[in-house]
Amino acid sequence: MSSNNLTIDIDTHGLITDLQKLIKIPSVSARKQNLEECAKEIVEMMKRIGIKAELLYLEREQKNSTIIPPVVYGEVKSKSNPNGKTLLFYNHYDVQPEEPIDLWDFGPFEGKIDGNLIYGRGASDDKGELVTRLKAIEYFLKNRGDVPINIKFLVEGEEEIGSNNISNYLKKYKEKFEADIVIWEFGYIDQKLKPIISLGMKGLLYVELTAQGASRDVHSSLAVLIENPAWRIVKALSTMVNEKGRILIKDWYKEVKKLSNEENKVVNSEPFDEDGFKKEYGISKFINNLKGKGVKKALICEPTCNISGLYSGYSGPGAKTITPSKAMAKIDFRLVPNMDPAVQFKRLENHLKENGFEDIKITKIHGEAAGRTELNNRYVKVIQNSANEIFGDSIISISSAGTGPMFDFIDLLKAPCISIGGTYIFSRIHSPNEYARIDLLEKTTRCMIKIIDNISISSL
Amino acid sequence: MSSNNLTIDIDTHGLITDLQKLIKIPSVSARKQNLEECAKEIVEMMKRIGIKAELLYLEREQKNSTIIPPVVYGEVKSKSNPNGKTLLFYNHYDVQPEEPIDLWDFGPFEGKIDGNLIYGRGASDDKGELVTRLKAIEYFLKNRGDVPINIKFLVEGEEEIGSNNISNYLKKYKEKFEADIVIWEFGYIDQKLKPIISLGMKGLLYVELTAQGASRDVHSSLAVLIENPAWRIVKALSTMVNEKGRILIKDWYKEVKKLSNEENKVVNSEPFDEDGFKKEYGISKFINNLKGKGVKKALICEPTCNISGLYSGYSGPGAKTITPSKAMAKIDFRLVPNMDPAVQFKRLENHLKENGFEDIKITKIHGEAAGRTELNNRYVKVIQNSANEIFGDSIISISSAGTGPMFDFIDLLKAPCISIGGTYIFSRIHSPNEYARIDLLEKTTRCMIKIIDNISISSL
Repeated sequence: MSSNNLTIDIDTHGLITDLQKLIKIPSVSARKQNLEECAKEIVEMMKRIGIKAELLYLEREQKNSTIIPPVVYGEVKSKSNPNGKTLLFYNHYDVQPEEPIDLWDFGPFEGKIDGNLIYGRGASDDKGELVTRLKAIEYFLKNRGDVPINIKFLVEGEEEIGSNNISNYLKKYKEKFEADIVIWEFGYIDQKLKPIISLGMKGLLYVELTAQGASRDVHSSLAVLIENPAWRIVKALSTMVNEKGRILIKDWYKEVKKLSNEENKVVNSEPFDEDGFKKEYGISKFINNLKGKGVKKALICEPTCNISGLYSGYSGPGAKTITPSKAMAKIDFRLVPNMDPAVQFKRLENHLKENGFEDIKITKIHGEAAGRTELNNRYVKVIQNSANEIFGDSIISISSAGTGPMFDFIDLLKAPCISIGGTYIFSRIHSPNEYARIDLLEKTTRCMIKIIDNISISSL
Repeated sequence: MSSNNLTIDIDTHGLITDLQKLIKIPSVSARKQNLEECAKEIVEMMKRIGIKAELLYLEREQKNSTIIPPVVYGEVKSKSNPNGKTLLFYNHYDVQPEEPIDLWDFGPFEGKIDGNLIYGRGASDDKGELVTRLKAIEYFLKNRGDVPINIKFLVEGEEEIGSNNISNYLKKYKEKFEADIVIWEFGYIDQKLKPIISLGMKGLLYVELTAQGASRDVHSSLAVLIENPAWRIVKALSTMVNEKGRILIKDWYKEVKKLSNEENKVVNSEPFDEDGFKKEYGISKFINNLKGKGVKKALICEPTCNISGLYSGYSGPGAKTITPSKAMAKIDFRLVPNMDPAVQFKRLENHLKENGFEDIKITKIHGEAAGRTELNNRYVKVIQNSANEIFGDSIISISSAGTGPMFDFIDLLKAPCISIGGTYIFSRIHSPNEYARIDLLEKTTRCMIKIIDNISISSL
């Protein structure tokens, strides 16, 4: 089978040079830097391939002079099968900041090649993934003069800062984006070179709690009289979870569904290198001494209440005896399917009120529901078969532990979203020396071609 | 009476110029700045007055090249009464840092006079207090050629950073410092211009708690697996006090004694401007809705467990989704008489162990026992009578809410320590625009003269 697939004649040289071209544009969304420039370059790339491409904007951008980065929209209609299925590739052209710069061995925006590896910010996340998809379409147009199904692209510029405008784009340009299947922006390939086909993302509710004491930090001899806001925050937080990490807010788990037997079987069969993971993060055990299936279930199914930040008073060396005037906690709750961020926020508000913490101010910073495609969705099998043809094997995962705007796609487009791609699991995304493996970029390009072909010939 | 006291002919002009001279030396102990220079200037001042003066050092200073500031020792033997009583003035020549500099209306080290006020860092705390005492001795030597009792001075250079070496100085030079009565470095004068004669200081145990998670901050999608040290600190802290601020550590209050009936009466009679205090600190109520006597008792008798600092993870704007690798809390416990900082530290260690927080590291930063002179000590009455003669009235306070090295003096010198001085209660010590009231410096100088005369004629 693999010899057959190797005959899929893709343009590896073009793949590398296109990826280098994109890496060289430092499109760091956290700094609102070079975003439109990068989007325009992608439009040009698409046009050269034969993809109809344009930049989409949100109206309020022009009005408010707030710079919302454009979305790249690309489209190729199938000449032979214009009323057939439509596949939408979701990707992003923005990247994480390159800091800390001194830990890079090569320039983060250079695209240096070293053997099988190409280094640079975005090499894997997500410029490398995008290029494999562009090259797959190029393959069809160059070799067959047509695509067997309709293809669309949505490439956004705010993924690394929370995709705050994606739902507005999806609403405004709904007709353009309509599709039968969405291929998600990335997919991991594990140590044994098996692609992980992931069917979901967790949701997120991010809040900030603040407590106010005296109008300024005061000498702590007055702690007998003046309420300490750090104690208020500590006391409030301690009512929110028990010692096992179980969230104690009323009805928090009310809508959470158990896994089906079939889902359970899939979770069980997923490989997970516990020792490798512990070594990577310098820990000797998991929370609650989780092991085996418990670890994998937690990553997929467990809602969390995590303290991302905690701050009050003096944090320098030695002693300073003050009763602080302010205390702050940043909390992120990961959500699983059926949990509504707005409802969970209300429950948190009620919890604090009912426990006597009316004085604590709660600010909602971000809310995003979990998205998940059903295991028995018919596209899952087609994609898995395609991946197996190219990689020999693959892994199905019910959900990633991370968060992305998958819910918006599923909810607004009513289409399944499936995550598959070419990001090697240790390719240091978000970190210094991010790289992509050229062999995996090639294989992934072939995998995308396979997926498109197989969708066209399947009775979906 | 007051007309009689006004005839005590003190050198106001010299008082002001000497104070200006000292303010102009920025002896900031937090920065180890100009300390020896200031100490030498005081030795010169003392010598000009006729006080035998020298600088004392700790040996390990020379050996370790750690700069421990010298102590100024001053002494005047009474010619007429060399075997009579000895009074030791305890003061300090170091000052708090002047920051924030932009909030000063005059140069913090200028000594600017504006009507009745002299501005500058140290104007009240503690250079102003020291100068009143020097001028009192000058009065005796100039007008009578003798002091009626033996006088000693101990002027240290580390009070503002915790007096870490004072007990070593007291031990090494014990014979020099032996005294029958110690007049403490400062004393407040309230809004109605009544001096507050305070007989004690609270103690302090200052610790830092740290918890460690993964070897680096990790993406919070992993919070299901990796223990969050911020939760460990929050959970540990929440076991330490209840919602009313009562400390839950076993035996914490074991050695705390109730006030005697007499002490209770004194606490009750002490004035306290609740509304003024609330306004000053921008609060609408006191902890546990304390009122009246409760407020005053808390300040004097209540041990506290105060969070001075709390830090973990991300404290910038917006959202960052991490599980922090570290969390830290700085806690200061104010102690009352009979509580031993070393014993209380052990109790805290045991508490954390017994509650399952063996993973939390505890570092002791500072420990100092409370010091208190008995209300019925015979010197109290003499000093109160002296203050009443000069100020018309005075207030006795069993203890300040603050901390100072009084325990070391009481313990090592076996002498009562009484706090009386000329620091106006709103004179902004430790803050921008610190000032001293010239009228109160004059009155306080007369009060010191009165105290010395009255000790010499009392049958103590």
